[in-house]
Amino acid sequence: MRVLGVDPGLTRCGVGVVEGVAGRPLTMVGVGVVRTPADADLGHRLVAIEQGIEQWLDEHRPEFVAVERVFSQHNVRTVMGTAQASAVAMLCAARRGIPVALHTPSEVKAAVTGSGRADKAQVGAMVTRLLRLGAPPKPADAADALALAICHIWRAPAQNRLQRAVALHTAKAPKGRTA
Amino acid sequence: MRVLGVDPGLTRCGVGVVEGVAGRPLTMVGVGVVRTPADADLGHRLVAIEQGIEQWLDEHRPEFVAVERVFSQHNVRTVMGTAQASAVAMLCAARRGIPVALHTPSEVKAAVTGSGRADKAQVGAMVTRLLRLGAPPKPADAADALALAICHIWRAPAQNRLQRAVALHTAKAPKGRTA
Repeated sequence: MRVLGVDPGLTRCGVGVVEGVAGRPLTMVGVGVVRTPADADLGHRLVAIEQGIEQWLDEHRPEFVAVERVFSQHNVRTVMGTAQASAVAMLCAARRGIPVALHTPSEVKAAVTGSGRADKAQVGAMVTRLLRLGAPPKPADAADALALAICHIWRAPAQNRLQRAVALHTAKAPKGRTA
Repeated sequence: MRVLGVDPGLTRCGVGVVEGVAGRPLTMVGVGVVRTPADADLGHRLVAIEQGIEQWLDEHRPEFVAVERVFSQHNVRTVMGTAQASAVAMLCAARRGIPVALHTPSEVKAAVTGSGRADKAQVGAMVTRLLRLGAPPKPADAADALALAICHIWRAPAQNRLQRAVALHTAKAPKGRTA
């Protein structure tokens, strides 16, 4: 199973591709960050994110896209940008018939560290260990994207298979329900 | 000047096209609503909104797109969906090099009724009068989209011309600043 994890953001959108199945060692296929200039207008920033995500989808052909579920507890201004960047990532995936899964930050932390309240350093350390990397991926957004992909591979493999079948079936009929 | 107004929403996305210049009678070119089923998954809903907005852009070729600026004072769940739908509308416009303007609900109300705290009925009544329609457009999202377009035509015509020149110039260079 090949999963693209996306940690959405307007300034830095973390992206990471992980391959593997639950219960086996996982492999990092690629990691990076899609950046947009803070002084560009919002429409152009969203276009740049779309182009970046499209490149990652073209190059790595993931079977699933896992996006961080956005909450609005945090800074209001940041959250709106995060919601908008996540919309672009979901749109790019859904347009291709790739199923999209949303995972909360605490689900991701719990999956890779065992604790839903782990800090960035702990998540980075576990991603490094689980993917057998030489050093933690930087910036933190890139590590978080890999953690999302790992979380997705480990959570409910049966549900993933069902979701994929439904998404492929309904790719051209937006009425379909896949989540 | 031809403007597409978009009142963003996941369930109902109001769209309205108005043509005219400040100080002259305005004309309604089209009005409608892009709907997505509440039981579809989020990715597919965003794809349906993209398809709907693309159809309106193809059919009416607006020179500007005016989108309601989303705030997060309101219901948290609704606001995230609104932010995501607005991201898709902005993306569609910016991809074509059409400048996108954001107007707050109170700017729109003040523009068409003279009061930033006007209610839905008052906005609907003024839209009906200003566009010389037989009856208020329904649903309210459609009337709000027309009000957004009117607001955009009336606010800062000089700024609009500058914005359009910059947007056309930078359409293929996402670093450009147009707002």
